[in-house]
Amino acid sequence: MIASPSLSVTFGDVQAARDRILPYIHRTPVLTSRLIDEQAGARVFFKCEIFQKVGAFKARGAFSRLTLLSPKERSRGVVAFSSGNHAQAVALAARELSLRATIVMPTDAPASKIAATRGYGAQVVLYDRIGGESREEIGRRIAEEEGAVLVPPFDDDAVIAGQGTLALEFLEDVPDLEIVVTPCSGGGLLSGTAVAAKGVNPEIRLWGVEPEAGDDMKRSLEAGRIIEVPLPATIADALQTTRPAERTFAIVRALTEGILTVSDLELQRAMALLASRMKLVVEPGGAAAFAALLHGKVPDAAGRRIGIVLSGGNVDPERFRTLISDLG
Amino acid sequence: MIASPSLSVTFGDVQAARDRILPYIHRTPVLTSRLIDEQAGARVFFKCEIFQKVGAFKARGAFSRLTLLSPKERSRGVVAFSSGNHAQAVALAARELSLRATIVMPTDAPASKIAATRGYGAQVVLYDRIGGESREEIGRRIAEEEGAVLVPPFDDDAVIAGQGTLALEFLEDVPDLEIVVTPCSGGGLLSGTAVAAKGVNPEIRLWGVEPEAGDDMKRSLEAGRIIEVPLPATIADALQTTRPAERTFAIVRALTEGILTVSDLELQRAMALLASRMKLVVEPGGAAAFAALLHGKVPDAAGRRIGIVLSGGNVDPERFRTLISDLG
Repeated sequence: MIASPSLSVTFGDVQAARDRILPYIHRTPVLTSRLIDEQAGARVFFKCEIFQKVGAFKARGAFSRLTLLSPKERSRGVVAFSSGNHAQAVALAARELSLRATIVMPTDAPASKIAATRGYGAQVVLYDRIGGESREEIGRRIAEEEGAVLVPPFDDDAVIAGQGTLALEFLEDVPDLEIVVTPCSGGGLLSGTAVAAKGVNPEIRLWGVEPEAGDDMKRSLEAGRIIEVPLPATIADALQTTRPAERTFAIVRALTEGILTVSDLELQRAMALLASRMKLVVEPGGAAAFAALLHGKVPDAAGRRIGIVLSGGNVDPERFRTLISDLG
Repeated sequence: MIASPSLSVTFGDVQAARDRILPYIHRTPVLTSRLIDEQAGARVFFKCEIFQKVGAFKARGAFSRLTLLSPKERSRGVVAFSSGNHAQAVALAARELSLRATIVMPTDAPASKIAATRGYGAQVVLYDRIGGESREEIGRRIAEEEGAVLVPPFDDDAVIAGQGTLALEFLEDVPDLEIVVTPCSGGGLLSGTAVAAKGVNPEIRLWGVEPEAGDDMKRSLEAGRIIEVPLPATIADALQTTRPAERTFAIVRALTEGILTVSDLELQRAMALLASRMKLVVEPGGAAAFAALLHGKVPDAAGRRIGIVLSGGNVDPERFRTLISDLG
């Protein structure tokens, strides 16, 4: 037997994160639908992070990180780069904890996410994602200039531990889950969920879901090393990363079954079904885990008790209308 | 002090209904949003009956009634007339309890509701609502011919008691509600909620909300007797009744503050805000209580803890898209 390399986030880290963030976040409900069960041929449990503060699980990671800051760090404020949900989450957490926040966002981020981030009192710096500017570089420059603490969207142990807290709640509500499926962007949600779920029950099988166009984690797992992909063209704006971090890659590699991929049309079909059957507004990336299940891509799912993370619901109304139309 | 006339449904009836229906229905979650609170200037708690079986509170009343049938009645089956949600509810309850069900539905009911009713195994008989045929007459004729038990949508004490069960849950989850607002069609939901809420806390203030075009309960209260209105032209298909029943009228008159009205545009604005802020798909009639609060129509609401019943989510996707568009 080959020993696993030690991972950067432990089950204890997730439990500690939960204690820290408890006053600030919602315990989100788990919803079910018999009609969905019949369609999926399994018992499906939806962890509704669309009802989380800022409309996405990212609030967990942001509060987990910001509650660890020293008094000196707090006085200098935080900076984050994000295509949307992480930006809102850091802005909210900063406001709640009375810190200054600067957020670097792409100009093509959904208008509602930019507006919401500003609404939380953060200073927003826009950059041109297509033009080749690196948000990491901009974020790091601002952090240096202002002495602020950079809060990465996934390449951070406290952020990963924070995201994992949703799995603790999920398994308290539905202790006998056999499979848990989450969307996968940089891997923070998937790796945090994996650490937490395996800590509760080592038999649980974890899957992550990427858009076909942005399968950097899948390719990295196949290659056994981090692979970078071009900026993916997908409707799932929340899943437009080009490469995982070393720490998320290591956890996903050690603890999950692997990565599944879905097309944009499969995401749209999942969104439409969630709207009509579950009465839920889910953003494209937030529907990725359900899209994989719905299209028969989750191995050995038949008859199982499956946890599906609906990770975010921040989609402009006009865009939502367009995406759930004309699915043939 | 004038003694109240005795009402046909008691708090004990609601408690008994709850025991009967417990195995069959969902305990629906209560959701909140700080952004909605800021916009409404109050603490708002949403009782999400959109997640109830069949997507609406009507499952409660149907199970409450059908679980009271005698063995002889069960053998003859049930018949119901409904524009939609009650139809699905009776069809589901009949299937769960192994009864035969015939449902009389208007030809212009939403396609999804007709399909769902058939999907539950009920026989659907369509009639032309605009043409002047009376669904009550058709339902009664079928009931007589087949010896089946007629299950009215609201003019029935067991149905009213069943709808009231949602208020028991609501006040367990949020004990210090000061005001509860529900949509009002024939008054079954409002009167059941009033009996239950007043039974828990006599100080709670109850309001019902009708579409402006179909304010039969409001006019009846003002006249002190039942007033019939023409078939209302409103997007709220679930609220298209022309008159309350004697028993719902009596309860609403005795236990509530009164009736508020909202326009179709106000319903649409409420639906759009529930979709963008709360990530919830709510049908037009289901959003009526929130529409009244949002537009400042609930008296003395500022700073109060207000329970809003989101009563149903059954709206065709295409219609939903249209209704949340173009609100100026």
